[in-house]
Amino acid sequence: VVLALYHAEPVANSMKALLCLHEKGLAFESRYVDLLKFEQHDPAFVAINPNGQVPVLVHDGAVVTESTVINEYLDEAFPETPLKPADPLGRARMRIWNKHVDEQFCPALSMWGWHRMVRQVATGIERDTFLKLLERIPLKEQRDKWATIAGDSFSAEQLAESRRKLEVSISKMEAILADAAWLAGPSYSLADVNTYPMAAGAVRMFPEMGENAPAFQDWLARMNERPAVKAALATPNRALGAHVEAYGSRADLVEGLRRA
Amino acid sequence: VVLALYHAEPVANSMKALLCLHEKGLAFESRYVDLLKFEQHDPAFVAINPNGQVPVLVHDGAVVTESTVINEYLDEAFPETPLKPADPLGRARMRIWNKHVDEQFCPALSMWGWHRMVRQVATGIERDTFLKLLERIPLKEQRDKWATIAGDSFSAEQLAESRRKLEVSISKMEAILADAAWLAGPSYSLADVNTYPMAAGAVRMFPEMGENAPAFQDWLARMNERPAVKAALATPNRALGAHVEAYGSRADLVEGLRRA
Repeated sequence: VVLALYHAEPVANSMKALLCLHEKGLAFESRYVDLLKFEQHDPAFVAINPNGQVPVLVHDGAVVTESTVINEYLDEAFPETPLKPADPLGRARMRIWNKHVDEQFCPALSMWGWHRMVRQVATGIERDTFLKLLERIPLKEQRDKWATIAGDSFSAEQLAESRRKLEVSISKMEAILADAAWLAGPSYSLADVNTYPMAAGAVRMFPEMGENAPAFQDWLARMNERPAVKAALATPNRALGAHVEAYGSRADLVEGLRRA
Repeated sequence: VVLALYHAEPVANSMKALLCLHEKGLAFESRYVDLLKFEQHDPAFVAINPNGQVPVLVHDGAVVTESTVINEYLDEAFPETPLKPADPLGRARMRIWNKHVDEQFCPALSMWGWHRMVRQVATGIERDTFLKLLERIPLKEQRDKWATIAGDSFSAEQLAESRRKLEVSISKMEAILADAAWLAGPSYSLADVNTYPMAAGAVRMFPEMGENAPAFQDWLARMNERPAVKAALATPNRALGAHVEAYGSRADLVEGLRRA
């Protein structure tokens, strides 16, 4: 296998890498990592990525982590169908925006994702079992995030601040897209690829967001029509609902998580 | 002027850009922004960078923000004396490390910098004057950070967590540098440029850090000997001490800040 991607559902950071691979028309082996079975903290996976996070790209045996870095790597290693602006200034604009996505947009969405979905699953696990699962998590930051589930969740203040950040991100997109077709200027780029999962996730979670942002809406509609977006979204989504279905009941799901 | 850099003292993110310019041997106009006079929140500066942060590069009239992006931009716009590995995998390694510096190492150092120095200055300002200065800060995240000075500072737990992150960063450096001459592999790169201000700042603040990390110590010694490092460090440092000296007394300094 030349290219393989370890990934979860086609949302958030996994979707960034899946979308980039599809946009560039690269054949790859999909290696599904089940986050709800904590497979990302399995010693076999931690041996591949010591941070215990998806996505991870393997190219001819070399491991690349961090979705934003993976996408720049794919663009440089496979220069056909370039997804970076040709000029240094356009690339700088793309990277400034990508930093915003990584440092503001994605963490804000992630907090709400945890609050709404992951928490529902994990609170079904017995506390002792859960604390044992926590011990396997390599990154302290990640352990702390999971530990919020065992104890208090995020505060109302933290959630409000994350919601504000989502709104700021959409306002910033509206301002950029009022003047340009794509987020880094006249050409489609990794800025658009990296933003799509967060923008789609924000409006899925808060349908009223972006209602007064016509350039944002137009961009989202153009993105939704892209064949690569459709192909990436067709990646099997086995999250919460699918899990409960597979296990037959919530009790079985909890039992499955315990065994994992 | 072809190239101009708005920057503060040769520490943290300003030092990253200053060091890159010196390593590449590029002539530039230095435009000093006095953070202790809150010049970064001045409407004239916010018109250049709406986030009200240094450093900012201006190249032929085009504005580039974010020190990590500025350095990649300089390397691409001025390809002589390249500071990126030639191969895509080396560049990916460089970017993964740069993300660690931006998201973990620098914020951890910054919290301690605030706690130890900036706070000393700002607490001398009357509360009402200070709250008025706060209103000019464009980014909410930055307003909140400055507001910690008006109210409670960082908690002991937050400071301990940041100290732990500094130690993790130095351990990670030790592991990389035990196997390679530089942080992105066999060649000097922007990973080293971007890390130097944080590593030097960490050992200045906590001299015991890195005592048991010989590869880290060796790297730091090699960095300190580089002519570009010496040249960048020779940028006038007008921080706290210099300010107090210039104003003659702490009371005059506070008066100066009030007028700013």
